Amino acid sequence: MTQSPTLPRPIQVASLIQGQWHAATGGQEIRDAAYGQPIAYVSSEGVDFAAALKYGRDVGGRNLRKLDFHQRARLLRSLAAYLNERKAEFNALSHLTGATRRDNLVDVDGGIGTLFSYSSMARRDLPAQKFVLEDDINLLGKGGSFIGRHVLVPREGVAVHINAFNFPVWGMLEKIAPNLIAGVPAIVKPASQTAYVTEAVVRAIHESGLLPEGALQLISGSTGDLFEHLQEQDTVTFTGSAATASKLKVHPNIVRRSVPFNTEADSLNCIVLGQTVTPDAPEFALFVREVVNEMTSKAGQKCTAIRRVIVPRERVEDVTQAIRERLSGITMGDPSREDVRMGPLVGASQRDDVAEVLRQLKAESEVLIGDERPELLGGDWDSGAFMAPTLLLADQPLTNHTAHELEAFGPVATLMPYADLDEAAELARLGRGSLAASIVTHDRPEARELFFGMASTHGRILILNRDDAKESTGHGSPLPQLKHGGPGRAGGGEELGGLRAVKHYLIRTAIQADPTTLTAITGEYVRGAAVTDDGVHPFRKNFDELKVGDSLLTPRRTITESDVSAFAGLSGDRFYAHTDEIAAKDSLFGKRVAHGYLVLAAAAGLFVDPGVGPVLANYGLEGLRFTEPVGFGDTIRARLTVQSKTAKETREGETPTGVVKWHVDVTNQNDVLVATYSILTLVARSANGPAI
Amino acid sequence: MTQSPTLPRPIQVASLIQGQWHAATGGQEIRDAAYGQPIAYVSSEGVDFAAALKYGRDVGGRNLRKLDFHQRARLLRSLAAYLNERKAEFNALSHLTGATRRDNLVDVDGGIGTLFSYSSMARRDLPAQKFVLEDDINLLGKGGSFIGRHVLVPREGVAVHINAFNFPVWGMLEKIAPNLIAGVPAIVKPASQTAYVTEAVVRAIHESGLLPEGALQLISGSTGDLFEHLQEQDTVTFTGSAATASKLKVHPNIVRRSVPFNTEADSLNCIVLGQTVTPDAPEFALFVREVVNEMTSKAGQKCTAIRRVIVPRERVEDVTQAIRERLSGITMGDPSREDVRMGPLVGASQRDDVAEVLRQLKAESEVLIGDERPELLGGDWDSGAFMAPTLLLADQPLTNHTAHELEAFGPVATLMPYADLDEAAELARLGRGSLAASIVTHDRPEARELFFGMASTHGRILILNRDDAKESTGHGSPLPQLKHGGPGRAGGGEELGGLRAVKHYLIRTAIQADPTTLTAITGEYVRGAAVTDDGVHPFRKNFDELKVGDSLLTPRRTITESDVSAFAGLSGDRFYAHTDEIAAKDSLFGKRVAHGYLVLAAAAGLFVDPGVGPVLANYGLEGLRFTEPVGFGDTIRARLTVQSKTAKETREGETPTGVVKWHVDVTNQNDVLVATYSILTLVARSANGPAI
Repeated sequence: MTQSPTLPRPIQVASLIQGQWHAATGGQEIRDAAYGQPIAYVSSEGVDFAAALKYGRDVGGRNLRKLDFHQRARLLRSLAAYLNERKAEFNALSHLTGATRRDNLVDVDGGIGTLFSYSSMARRDLPAQKFVLEDDINLLGKGGSFIGRHVLVPREGVAVHINAFNFPVWGMLEKIAPNLIAGVPAIVKPASQTAYVTEAVVRAIHESGLLPEGALQLISGSTGDLFEHLQEQDTVTFTGSAATASKLKVHPNIVRRSVPFNTEADSLNCIVLGQTVTPDAPEFALFVREVVNEMTSKAGQKCTAIRRVIVPRERVEDVTQAIRERLSGITMGDPSREDVRMGPLVGASQRDDVAEVLRQLKAESEVLIGDERPELLGGDWDSGAFMAPTLLLADQPLTNHTAHELEAFGPVATLMPYADLDEAAELARLGRGSLAASIVTHDRPEARELFFGMASTHGRILILNRDDAKESTGHGSPLPQLKHGGPGRAGGGEELGGLRAVKHYLIRTAIQADPTTLTAITGEYVRGAAVTDDGVHPFRKNFDELKVGDSLLTPRRTITESDVSAFAGLSGDRFYAHTDEIAAKDSLFGKRVAHGYLVLAAAAGLFVDPGVGPVLANYGLEGLRFTEPVGFGDTIRARLTVQSKTAKETREGETPTGVVKWHVDVTNQNDVLVATYSILTLVARSANGPAI
Repeated sequence: MTQSPTLPRPIQVASLIQGQWHAATGGQEIRDAAYGQPIAYVSSEGVDFAAALKYGRDVGGRNLRKLDFHQRARLLRSLAAYLNERKAEFNALSHLTGATRRDNLVDVDGGIGTLFSYSSMARRDLPAQKFVLEDDINLLGKGGSFIGRHVLVPREGVAVHINAFNFPVWGMLEKIAPNLIAGVPAIVKPASQTAYVTEAVVRAIHESGLLPEGALQLISGSTGDLFEHLQEQDTVTFTGSAATASKLKVHPNIVRRSVPFNTEADSLNCIVLGQTVTPDAPEFALFVREVVNEMTSKAGQKCTAIRRVIVPRERVEDVTQAIRERLSGITMGDPSREDVRMGPLVGASQRDDVAEVLRQLKAESEVLIGDERPELLGGDWDSGAFMAPTLLLADQPLTNHTAHELEAFGPVATLMPYADLDEAAELARLGRGSLAASIVTHDRPEARELFFGMASTHGRILILNRDDAKESTGHGSPLPQLKHGGPGRAGGGEELGGLRAVKHYLIRTAIQADPTTLTAITGEYVRGAAVTDDGVHPFRKNFDELKVGDSLLTPRRTITESDVSAFAGLSGDRFYAHTDEIAAKDSLFGKRVAHGYLVLAAAAGLFVDPGVGPVLANYGLEGLRFTEPVGFGDTIRARLTVQSKTAKETREGETPTGVVKWHVDVTNQNDVLVATYSILTLVARSANGPAI
């Protein structure tokens, strides 16, 4: 037995309610994972849950909704930077939960990274507005006077997050990032077992003073009668076991008030070794590394961890041997030690739960690896919650479903042999819905076949091979950009995944109106709306002076044969429809026509105001359609209209600018549309020139 | 009392299960709405529900998944055309449910129209593939070797639809259109009261032989033990009362297996008359017309019908008087008569339910209009289920919430006075979540203020005024393109709304891979994937010969000062950054640079193969970004790569063609990207020329 280090004296974990720290006395006793000594007490006794919800809605919601998406995104970025400075504190506390230094990279650094990611995604993909416009407009009548569009606004409730014990930092931050971006306040309830880590992060957030009042509350301990006070605009997310999820989501208030309930449950995730992968291929080693990593990181306590290892029957022995070898290099012990790769489970009761499931699994499987007690580098086998990595073999996994159904939430996985790719995919599907799967192969047709055999039962599938291994973030890591969640057993929820996660906290409303009213409401010009032409060329107005709907109808220009010949010469584009009288007669157009890009260039020639002014550059173009050919002698003109405006964030010393999107319609002498598109320009904000 | 016409002899309504018609004997007796005579018996006794689900999954699902989105969309179009020919039959039966000719326009024509709409939307916005690619790619590592994307595949289960009595045709067709497009089979269970109409439509569909075997089953009568046999890949939609929804969605199997359950419940929809609308304004008349139409069409039995009429306090009398006048012109009676505008409720028990709620409402409100028995044109007050339109007044609606909570599902609405716009929006929100609302005003700031005050509690908001009234489809009509569903009281579900509705039946899977594998799996080229350059110019290959990843790296071209001067002359675009040496020095670029459109034109000059060939036209361009300026003397080249292909449907006599989307990257002499975009071309399929 190793010497127990000096652990901190037990603390009382507090709740942050209505802006005040609230500490009960006593409550559930929490012990550290490696030595089993008491370190904290958790209780929410005395918390007024109804008042917490009301405060969240009335104070937090109102404060957050005063900001736009970009302002909230910048708050998140500042918060991430602030927390980054205080990482050491969180890491030290996290070791008490059994997390090693590598585990903390996922939980602490990963959590803070998620804030940074959401901040970037929001500033890139959301408008500097308080609502989101979705899709293009829908023409609802032939005359164009009745059109429809979707607008997303923040829910006017609280996002309640019930989190799991395994990621006390990331688990909270990945949940609140989307709701804060959306403009919705949160109440976080971490699992009591590791609530002291979450509490430390919330204390730091509170001390930073960066979030508006009411944006974040914390419940340490039970949720009491919280659910009794939920209302229609609130939401609940739950991460944890499928059994608990089933109980919570049928609460009468959830059901009666249609409170969205998002579940992310543990699932029996799998990894599949391709048939084409031989033991000497790089993919074989990648496969083994991934399996061992998933068995040992967080001591297997991840909802995405690999539980089912699906391999060609002829590879069972090679794979077992390679896993055994790699596992032998994994050091176990006190997670705060730099030389320790795998820590204990979070606590004794979790270890006992896993041992019980393992006992049931063993009844149906053969033990390939496990049943020994490796030497510990610190920590204690008796008082700590250690467990040796265990690999089982389910020899007939198509007919014996035990290992597809029972989940040991620890360092336990089951090897399952398959005969062909159909069988491999069927085994994968027998998990009845998982968060993540990996397919390891360098053979693309094999990858394709397995992918489509498994897609309907998986939320995320990693294809691992020599080409992406170096940059791969691994089987078990949900990424902010990609969906996290899975169907069926995995709970049917959807978290993360870029803006989709933010949209969980927004309400979609279809709006039907005439174009002018739609433009007035949404602040984005749509064709058919009234425009403003005050005689001042819009290129002479700076960003702040320009208004949505400001418009210019240009003079006309006749496109001649000489224009087209000259353009062919200058561009080098001598496509027969422009230059070959004989072939053009038989073409789609029946005659020689102007180059599309000549129309584009001529339109710019018509609307560009050449002198120095606030418009600094045209940097892009969207949705160009050539709707009618332009023949020789056709006379075109353009209408240029401000479609939308987005102010850009200005860094120290930069000229303040904004992006102006212009809608351009080019018509011919018969008022027939020949081209339509939007252009993107950078426009100076206040100065009437390019003050660089 | 009027003479009862000769009604059909009672029929036994059958179920279509496992491809066979199954008729029980007896069961619930159904009477016609206007005369109260027995017309049908409904029972699902003897149906094997477990077998029905299994058959749907194994036969229907497999058959549908053999087709791609476009093929399924074309089936829907054929089906719509077929049903259109048999409308008279459905209309005649529908009259027995109380539906007038105008009501049938919504139910029968509207239902068939929804099939046409979904077919069009799918062919326009979904690929001719068996899966959907969503979003752009996500770079998951800096080196570009690890990227992510979302793929949507069909759920491998059955879509179970539990429908309401009021729209026996539209109710079924709007539900099955999205799931059939998605490749998912349906089991429809109409409300027993009007199941004979739905059965007639299913008989027609079955007789058409257009849908693959197993794609559609019908349960007439109770769902028995159906829910006991639901699995993870199945889905359920429910339309009806919030109370029944609450019961069904907590079924242990729904909860345990995370079966998606979409609810669309009746809600207390409102209409708001703007403060700026005077009685002589066109909007006043539009408002009154809309209220009366919603009270009387389907005798008010619509989940979207207006229940709350919110008006400025000073307009209460004018509005009441105008509604009274307009109601007096609404003829009631036998719904099969051409001169009847309003029919009876669906049956005696529905009428009794409404009468009971009305009694409770009256206890808290004043009756402004109602309490009389207008003369009937056919039908019978005693044996039929007629009810006079009733308008109540809730004088203090901010404090007395009865009319915000109790719904009389019939021709009943309550007038609510407001003092200012804040109060109007608050009243609207007191419905705690509604499917639809209307705002009637021609004042845009007023419309904007009301819209954002109401958006978070409404699924759809119509802004009605003189500009859109002519084309408006009205307050109560859900449209295939727009969201149908609402938060809170309305059930929190989302139906219709274009592709979103189809996505309810697809599973989203994030895929992580290297670019080449991602391209191989998804069939869409992404930057960084291996390309094929076989020496044949891709413009020389026809649609069928072209493969995703076929690529051309062009020769180089130096862009010179003369090019830019010539381009300025030809285009007329003399923007100072291209033509004014002095001003350009102070510009963003620090020197004169080439026009972006010159770069575009020169790139085309480099990659276009000029001779007659399978490429017929370039009709569009997407996502253009100029990423670096091109200065005088810079040397550019382009890489043109097939990004994706979509075969086009060919009509009689047309040249078979397809759309080829090309990815273009233009780089300079330092291999720095200067422009990137995608172009859209029309390419002949087999002929090696423009066989027009």
